[in-house]
Amino acid sequence: MTSLHGPYARNGRYVGYFPPVAYPYAPPVPAHPWDAAAAYRQAVRRREQPLTFVLVHGSWADAGFWNGVAAELRRQGHTVYAPEYPGHGADFANTAATHAMMSQAIADDIETLDLRNVVLVGHSFGGTIVQKAAELVPERLKRIVFIDAFVLKDGGSLSDELPPEAVALFTQLMEASGNNAIMLPFPFFRDAFVNLASLETARQLYAGIKPEPAGPLFEKLDLKKFYSLTTPKSYVYLTVDNVLPQGLGYGWHPHMSSRLGQFRLIKGYGDHMTQFKTEPKKIADLLYMAGRD
Amino acid sequence: MTSLHGPYARNGRYVGYFPPVAYPYAPPVPAHPWDAAAAYRQAVRRREQPLTFVLVHGSWADAGFWNGVAAELRRQGHTVYAPEYPGHGADFANTAATHAMMSQAIADDIETLDLRNVVLVGHSFGGTIVQKAAELVPERLKRIVFIDAFVLKDGGSLSDELPPEAVALFTQLMEASGNNAIMLPFPFFRDAFVNLASLETARQLYAGIKPEPAGPLFEKLDLKKFYSLTTPKSYVYLTVDNVLPQGLGYGWHPHMSSRLGQFRLIKGYGDHMTQFKTEPKKIADLLYMAGRD
Amino acid sequence: MTSLHGPYARNGRYVGYFPPVAYPYAPPVPAHPWDAAAAYRQAVRRREQPLTFVLVHGSWADAGFWNGVAAELRRQGHTVYAPEYPGHGADFANTAATHAMMSQAIADDIETLDLRNVVLVGHSFGGTIVQKAAELVPERLKRIVFIDAFVLKDGGSLSDELPPEAVALFTQLMEASGNNAIMLPFPFFRDAFVNLASLETARQLYAGIKPEPAGPLFEKLDLKKFYSLTTPKSYVYLTVDNVLPQGLGYGWHPHMSSRLGQFRLIKGYGDHMTQFKTEPKKIADLLYMAGRD
Repeated sequence: MTSLHGPYARNGRYVGYFPPVAYPYAPPVPAHPWDAAAAYRQAVRRREQPLTFVLVHGSWADAGFWNGVAAELRRQGHTVYAPEYPGHGADFANTAATHAMMSQAIADDIETLDLRNVVLVGHSFGGTIVQKAAELVPERLKRIVFIDAFVLKDGGSLSDELPPEAVALFTQLMEASGNNAIMLPFPFFRDAFVNLASLETARQLYAGIKPEPAGPLFEKLDLKKFYSLTTPKSYVYLTVDNVLPQGLGYGWHPHMSSRLGQFRLIKGYGDHMTQFKTEPKKIADLLYMAGRD
Repeated sequence: MTSLHGPYARNGRYVGYFPPVAYPYAPPVPAHPWDAAAAYRQAVRRREQPLTFVLVHGSWADAGFWNGVAAELRRQGHTVYAPEYPGHGADFANTAATHAMMSQAIADDIETLDLRNVVLVGHSFGGTIVQKAAELVPERLKRIVFIDAFVLKDGGSLSDELPPEAVALFTQLMEASGNNAIMLPFPFFRDAFVNLASLETARQLYAGIKPEPAGPLFEKLDLKKFYSLTTPKSYVYLTVDNVLPQGLGYGWHPHMSSRLGQFRLIKGYGDHMTQFKTEPKKIADLLYMAGRD
Repeated sequence: MTSLHGPYARNGRYVGYFPPVAYPYAPPVPAHPWDAAAAYRQAVRRREQPLTFVLVHGSWADAGFWNGVAAELRRQGHTVYAPEYPGHGADFANTAATHAMMSQAIADDIETLDLRNVVLVGHSFGGTIVQKAAELVPERLKRIVFIDAFVLKDGGSLSDELPPEAVALFTQLMEASGNNAIMLPFPFFRDAFVNLASLETARQLYAGIKPEPAGPLFEKLDLKKFYSLTTPKSYVYLTVDNVLPQGLGYGWHPHMSSRLGQFRLIKGYGDHMTQFKTEPKKIADLLYMAGRD
């Protein structure tokens, strides 16, 4: 089984490729102390529909970020792909990777695998990748799902969504790196990205991250086509996410989610990264609730 | 038992009439994975007080909307009335019904039944009915409870609280109806009203709705008397409600709830309609927490 | 055991003094229906680190406010002090107590006990005490934790954070007292401070409160040094707190929390006071999540 979970090389890049299991598959129905558990268990019992997920990770992460969540989704009968993209994973040293290279890679994967009715999921910076990839293969998408992910406005950049202090910090880290990359200091990562984690989990998660190519965080994106797409959209908001200020003019929801126009809203208790590792079933449940018809 | 739950004809209109059960009644104390469960179970064990609830449904609903919640409240020893009002239920074809006719009907029911110490509950559009009905029978009310319900400002209309896109959609649907009514398209209903539901539940709920008389959604209401009432008020906010934008200038809470001045705040995990059907005990618990002394 | 929990007289003032238990101590791992339970239990199993807490209560409270929470924290192996300060507890008749006297008392306690690596926790008005006490003994602090606590801006007063209606109410109550104190009317306390409580619990909590010295609520504080401190900070937000409006320009989080700059965010389901009494383990868990490395 282990080899099936690992990254899979294709076109010179690594692709985290999770092959589908046969459907129907009887999913386990665990008891866990989560708000939406009752609603979800009911859905699971009815096994509404198998979905095809393409999961796009964010900054300071690689395709392995999705390992636990993808395994849970597969266990529930879904087909799951977690592709890698330039500047990340085995390609992490490529700090010259551009946003266009990244979104093109995701679109290429969807075309190469000839995927249809895709539920395209973006986390964090992955939201911006999903916005541009959706412009390239809109006819292959069933729904676009953002989970604590950036939804940039047309002509905007990720850095536009950061408070001035964060822009200053990131600029300083980028300049100090000498190679156009940004590495997060542990104290900042611990309190902003994994604020609900135990120290041990925080350290484990931090040990896995690599410097992030800085360029795409400052690139301004033409998103006119994205905002013309009629593809259904969902926003999953983990309510204790502390990466962005939750006040006026900033934040995942409602500040950026509202740019989607009509969308399906799902909420859960979590921070920016911890529960993807410690409670993958919870995240998988939220993604299913976001992606189903 | 079934006949006791059904609608009851009176004065030519249908009234969902739930007769009280004898009190004291030992309520069941189930274990369910809900945030406020511990606090509530403690209250139940102490069986503080039986209440008299009058439950006022919203748009695209009829008195049957409350069936599950009313049954739970009765099981806990409360007296519950879920009256129908013009333009809804058996009177649904009456799309000329006005807001004054609707709120007068609720006030008439309370007077006809000679109810005292009423906990008057409004859901959604029902909040506007409750505001006006409270002006008519203030001396009969113990507390006014809003649950994801409109609290209009003096001189305002429900449509004032909708974003321009929703006003445009509703206007277009109203004009297309040919009879001054609005029927929600399923995709909009599914993502905005029952976003947490399974597809099966969403379809069941959609199958039960009828076109809504459009007029009252655009009527401007004189609410000077409402804002002079000293009746205690509560606001129950289901935090994943996606009918209104949750951002600046819109939304149930805090945007509209704050108009109540001092009020009791209760929150729960839910969307606009699903949990009233799938988790009626949870909603009943929230309403009891909102209504008790 | 009881005598160990009681207040302890020192320097003519009462100090709620909870002596540490030997560490390591195997904490109980109960199952309870709380969102963050899974994450917390994991942390507990790993028993990351024993902490030294100093808990500073707010208005209309005394050191006994922390009894349940402190007992839980001790059970988990932490050292906990809940000092009393002027104008409260046995000194409640001293309505001339100033803010400087209060914060100095907390700093003195920390120095007298020669505490190091302190997790300094403020609740409600206690947040303002913690801000000033931190200026006096910054080198003794490991982290400053606010739990539904005021974070005043430099030159601001607590009353600046209240809506005009509350300022008017408090001023009226102060003037009516004849001795510069404010006693909360029960209906206001019940709906604003303990909105989730049963009536019985609300009455119990109300029976324990005494008039609050009014002066410090209106004192403007020089907080330049506080805002220069690099001590790590956390904010715990109980999301159903109804003491302050949750809308624009008011409230615990994000309105006041955002003044902390980078901080660790933790959230839980609760109101301003109830769960400290009814679910002390839940509050203790949140404080540990806020205080650990």
